[in-house]
Amino acid sequence: MSKGKVAIIMGSQSDLKVMSEAAKVLDELKVDYDVSIVSAHRTPERMFKFAQGAKSNGYHVIIAGAGGAAHLPGMVASLTILPVIGVPVKSSNSIDGWDSVLSILQMPGGVPVATVALDGAKNAGILAAQIIANFDQEVAKSLEDYKKQMKDKVMESAENLEANGWKSNKVGF
Amino acid sequence: MSKGKVAIIMGSQSDLKVMSEAAKVLDELKVDYDVSIVSAHRTPERMFKFAQGAKSNGYHVIIAGAGGAAHLPGMVASLTILPVIGVPVKSSNSIDGWDSVLSILQMPGGVPVATVALDGAKNAGILAAQIIANFDQEVAKSLEDYKKQMKDKVMESAENLEANGWKSNKVGF
Amino acid sequence: MSKGKVAIIMGSQSDLKVMSEAAKVLDELKVDYDVSIVSAHRTPERMFKFAQGAKSNGYHVIIAGAGGAAHLPGMVASLTILPVIGVPVKSSNSIDGWDSVLSILQMPGGVPVATVALDGAKNAGILAAQIIANFDQEVAKSLEDYKKQMKDKVMESAENLEANGWKSNKVGF
Amino acid sequence: MSKGKVAIIMGSQSDLKVMSEAAKVLDELKVDYDVSIVSAHRTPERMFKFAQGAKSNGYHVIIAGAGGAAHLPGMVASLTILPVIGVPVKSSNSIDGWDSVLSILQMPGGVPVATVALDGAKNAGILAAQIIANFDQEVAKSLEDYKKQMKDKVMESAENLEANGWKSNKVGF
Amino acid sequence: MSKGKVAIIMGSQSDLKVMSEAAKVLDELKVDYDVSIVSAHRTPERMFKFAQGAKSNGYHVIIAGAGGAAHLPGMVASLTILPVIGVPVKSSNSIDGWDSVLSILQMPGGVPVATVALDGAKNAGILAAQIIANFDQEVAKSLEDYKKQMKDKVMESAENLEANGWKSNKVGF
Amino acid sequence: MSKGKVAIIMGSQSDLKVMSEAAKVLDELKVDYDVSIVSAHRTPERMFKFAQGAKSNGYHVIIAGAGGAAHLPGMVASLTILPVIGVPVKSSNSIDGWDSVLSILQMPGGVPVATVALDGAKNAGILAAQIIANFDQEVAKSLEDYKKQMKDKVMESAENLEANGWKSNKVGF
Amino acid sequence: MSKGKVAIIMGSQSDLKVMSEAAKVLDELKVDYDVSIVSAHRTPERMFKFAQGAKSNGYHVIIAGAGGAAHLPGMVASLTILPVIGVPVKSSNSIDGWDSVLSILQMPGGVPVATVALDGAKNAGILAAQIIANFDQEVAKSLEDYKKQMKDKVMESAENLEANGWKSNKVGF
Amino acid sequence: MSKGKVAIIMGSQSDLKVMSEAAKVLDELKVDYDVSIVSAHRTPERMFKFAQGAKSNGYHVIIAGAGGAAHLPGMVASLTILPVIGVPVKSSNSIDGWDSVLSILQMPGGVPVATVALDGAKNAGILAAQIIANFDQEVAKSLEDYKKQMKDKVMESAENLEANGWKSNKVGF
Repeated sequence: MSKGKVAIIMGSQSDLKVMSEAAKVLDELKVDYDVSIVSAHRTPERMFKFAQGAKSNGYHVIIAGAGGAAHLPGMVASLTILPVIGVPVKSSNSIDGWDSVLSILQMPGGVPVATVALDGAKNAGILAAQIIANFDQEVAKSLEDYKKQMKDKVMESAENLEANGWKSNKVGF
Repeated sequence: MSKGKVAIIMGSQSDLKVMSEAAKVLDELKVDYDVSIVSAHRTPERMFKFAQGAKSNGYHVIIAGAGGAAHLPGMVASLTILPVIGVPVKSSNSIDGWDSVLSILQMPGGVPVATVALDGAKNAGILAAQIIANFDQEVAKSLEDYKKQMKDKVMESAENLEANGWKSNKVGF
Repeated sequence: MSKGKVAIIMGSQSDLKVMSEAAKVLDELKVDYDVSIVSAHRTPERMFKFAQGAKSNGYHVIIAGAGGAAHLPGMVASLTILPVIGVPVKSSNSIDGWDSVLSILQMPGGVPVATVALDGAKNAGILAAQIIANFDQEVAKSLEDYKKQMKDKVMESAENLEANGWKSNKVGF
Repeated sequence: MSKGKVAIIMGSQSDLKVMSEAAKVLDELKVDYDVSIVSAHRTPERMFKFAQGAKSNGYHVIIAGAGGAAHLPGMVASLTILPVIGVPVKSSNSIDGWDSVLSILQMPGGVPVATVALDGAKNAGILAAQIIANFDQEVAKSLEDYKKQMKDKVMESAENLEANGWKSNKVGF
Repeated sequence: MSKGKVAIIMGSQSDLKVMSEAAKVLDELKVDYDVSIVSAHRTPERMFKFAQGAKSNGYHVIIAGAGGAAHLPGMVASLTILPVIGVPVKSSNSIDGWDSVLSILQMPGGVPVATVALDGAKNAGILAAQIIANFDQEVAKSLEDYKKQMKDKVMESAENLEANGWKSNKVGF
Repeated sequence: MSKGKVAIIMGSQSDLKVMSEAAKVLDELKVDYDVSIVSAHRTPERMFKFAQGAKSNGYHVIIAGAGGAAHLPGMVASLTILPVIGVPVKSSNSIDGWDSVLSILQMPGGVPVATVALDGAKNAGILAAQIIANFDQEVAKSLEDYKKQMKDKVMESAENLEANGWKSNKVGF
Repeated sequence: MSKGKVAIIMGSQSDLKVMSEAAKVLDELKVDYDVSIVSAHRTPERMFKFAQGAKSNGYHVIIAGAGGAAHLPGMVASLTILPVIGVPVKSSNSIDGWDSVLSILQMPGGVPVATVALDGAKNAGILAAQIIANFDQEVAKSLEDYKKQMKDKVMESAENLEANGWKSNKVGF
Repeated sequence: MSKGKVAIIMGSQSDLKVMSEAAKVLDELKVDYDVSIVSAHRTPERMFKFAQGAKSNGYHVIIAGAGGAAHLPGMVASLTILPVIGVPVKSSNSIDGWDSVLSILQMPGGVPVATVALDGAKNAGILAAQIIANFDQEVAKSLEDYKKQMKDKVMESAENLEANGWKSNKVGF
């Protein structure tokens, strides 16, 4: 089976600050990906073409981030059978992010979008890797390592806190 | 100038109960219209074709109703320069209607949707007539009459209340 | 038919920072407009007079912006049959903008306000132009151009991202 | 000084079910009042005339109830120096009552509305009586009695619960 | 009848920044008042004594401001028949002010609090003056003047905007 | 040490339907308790007396339930050093329960209320028992049993589902 | 590669009404699955064991549904590298479903849950199938058919509406 | 009986800024405690071990703070019969704190978490002391003193305000 590949798209250049976290963690997990800008509202034809061709172009998962009335993830999902991961972006024109969250999450029956937390692009990357790990042992191994590293970092900070106390005079558990 | 014509579309058969209010009021205001079902998520190609052809097919305003992660009004607006009126529908799969409202209202700069109240299809019809009244004197006349009738109905209920009291023994202003 | 003309009003001088976006885009779209301050709560008589005379004074669309318990758009709509576009302004005295949005959007049956996104004055301008484009071919042409420019800007940023990568080492679609 | 008098107005006949609670409690507290229907959006001229004449017509307090984008209390307040008590009504076209609450409560600096709880017409009546009690000793006496009765009712239900237990076998404090 | 007098209380020293707006406007409207700190949660006995004695101590209206789980206005209202105006304060420990608003506004039937907008202490002061104006002609006169000044300020800014345009080249209505 | 004892109070007879769940589970856990009605707003003196005497009257924990602008738990907490558990009740006059939750939860620094879920009186009872179990071995034993029973019930329903399938033809884990 | 297999778990028997929709659609899409009850709060050890063994027991995707403070999906995700799809259930003890949604969606960086709409178990099933379709051609084929059927149903209802009109006398597009 | 002891745990090093308030107030109230980091999502095994051993390790109360989809308090509560106090932390990845609040507060029947205000770690400390004061007279004494000091501070600021006025020219009550 071919190696897994992820498409990371976003509605606007301004989403890149958030969405680059998905790219970073995919680098870390050794998953191949492409990044581009596809606007549902300003380039609907491009979105159509991208979504309809995504599977035959070799992608296995699509990560789509957008803010406000965020239609990109859902519209892409309507045009492909690939799993689409939606990242609600708390853009400057959103109402505390609620619009981004609800317009991605609340898809009607038949057309799912796998929604992650507000600005949760890192988790979108990890989820994409988890999907690919089903048929790619190397990625599965990366994910196991990643989980272990997270645990080690917590243990380290816990040990440090217990050793030195929150004001350097308290012992821990 | 040609007579004004409105397209009323909705994402699902189940939206008809709400959306028929737009048709009813357009009948009342003597505005011509067509009604159909166009799903952004289940018939994206049909939505594209409808939206791209709406202007050349003689429509002047589009009324689009949808619930949940409601992408229909915004996506249609991305594909035409006609004014698009969005009706957030409080469908069974919505979170108290907030998702419907926010995913229609919070469109990004460049692609407006004229949003009306939750389940406000009647107002969508009136708004469409107001837009058409700019170039259609008969519709303008209908709207003036409609406004007067609303006023008369309030006056009648006020007079009745003042005459008979809220428990039949109070006089009004 | 006479050339289309828009009235842009706002409840307070402090709304100008947001509302000037409507004026800017109307300049860009070559639509004529006037701008002034009309407070529903502090100058109710002025509001009445403005709204009742707006049609005979040659306006075709009214854009009204206000924040907090924003009554200006709805009250103007109660006094004219012109289409009224409401811009909820996230003023300093609003609760995250929810009050502005809901007190403009949730108009009762019979008196619509075409509501745009929070602080969405630019879209109010575009929507006004779309309404006017129904009887003004030049504005229709401006809108087609505007849509194309938006698309071109996205394409440009997409090409740049694909060419140089999000950290200068990734190719795009 | 003349005896206090209250005007109870509401935006629609359908608000009467809620608003009659204000009338009932004013009867109980022996305060004089009138009741009528005044719609800000459907009868704006009537609203203007009512509000501008309310003081000279002998009213001391105005209770105004409305639902959805509820502009009646605030607009009346803009046209009189009488205290205006606003009752947010959870009408069928409201979003869980949030729109009614926020469009009455969040008035801009300079034009207050004394807002009570959602559907809180009874409290609006009591508040009106409290305002009048400042210059009407009889109403002050009624309010003292009312407070005592409320207390007595709680005491009675408490004693009953303590005597018989929540399942007839528990003693209270 | 004695001249009207207002008590302004707040739950904490930190509320003074907001609550001083009530004092300022009462100075402007020539209404007598006292200011102090009364905490429902930290000085419940003081609150009891204050509320129970407020009427006999010559106050006609109480303005109470508090943030978070704001119990001060409602508890004071439970202990007096004076009208109590509640000011929800958006204190640092509140959730965007929603807790302050709801715990003041949503009083049970029988014990009203006249709630004003979030941080709306100025309006609390004006409302207190409106209540007092019912039996104090001088305050009524101040309020008429205040309303006129507000109108004049809007007219002035409107005229300035119309004369010079939003970018110095547009005429107004 | 004396056996633990709980006071269960509520603002109104109508809260009993929810609050009796606390009594039921305390019976089950063999914890002694009393139940009564104490209204912060309608019987403030009674509330004061109850709260100030609760500790010397032998109570170890107070469970207080109330709806809307729910001040009872917080006010009781201001008058005693006993732990106070607050139960937000979704009463008919609440806004979806948000007011009940926020006016109990968001207590200022210095006066905690241990808040449980909306209508979560059962959990209030269990929490009271957990507090008492710190010095009452029998109650600790009851709690261990209760936890085991909960687990057994889940296991039973899981086994049943796995054995018979969700439509009687699927095996489980 | 082995055929894809899905585990459907839920926190309580009462979630089955919602969660059975996932099973139904997986039947339709010809994906193998098991269903059981695993409570994070009442059977934490069972949850641990299930989650830690899920991958070695042959599952490729986990669908976990829960309501209120819904911890099941996130805790399972913390214990496996399999993709976990979370279904927020609007259970009787939830606050309009907001608690279910937020406690599943807002996972911290490092531990994603693929969240679907409130009560969106059908979409959870489809998403699981989309994940499996990456390495199972038959399931990919099922999904293509499913998409086509959805489209056909919309087309049928659209044709019917256009042929017979919303009140049997209107033609469509 | 042994002296009371509290465990303070938090999901991440970044919660320490908020959670240290609990430690500070426990120092002030002379209650013994330990502090450490235990992540439900990144160190689930550590969380299990901590929670299952907490009682036998001599703790009487657990304070657990976390943000976003905050599962730590509820999961710990599922594994012990000790009272667990939950502190919702408004972390950078939370949606205005609503997610933190709801995912801690809305625990299902059977597994309570004693929730305090958003970022309310100080109150968590006081509540823990109140629980311990049931069997530790010294801590009860500390709490009485603490309550008196809070009162004295308010009285002092009230006296200062009354003596000097809010702008140095007003006398108080």
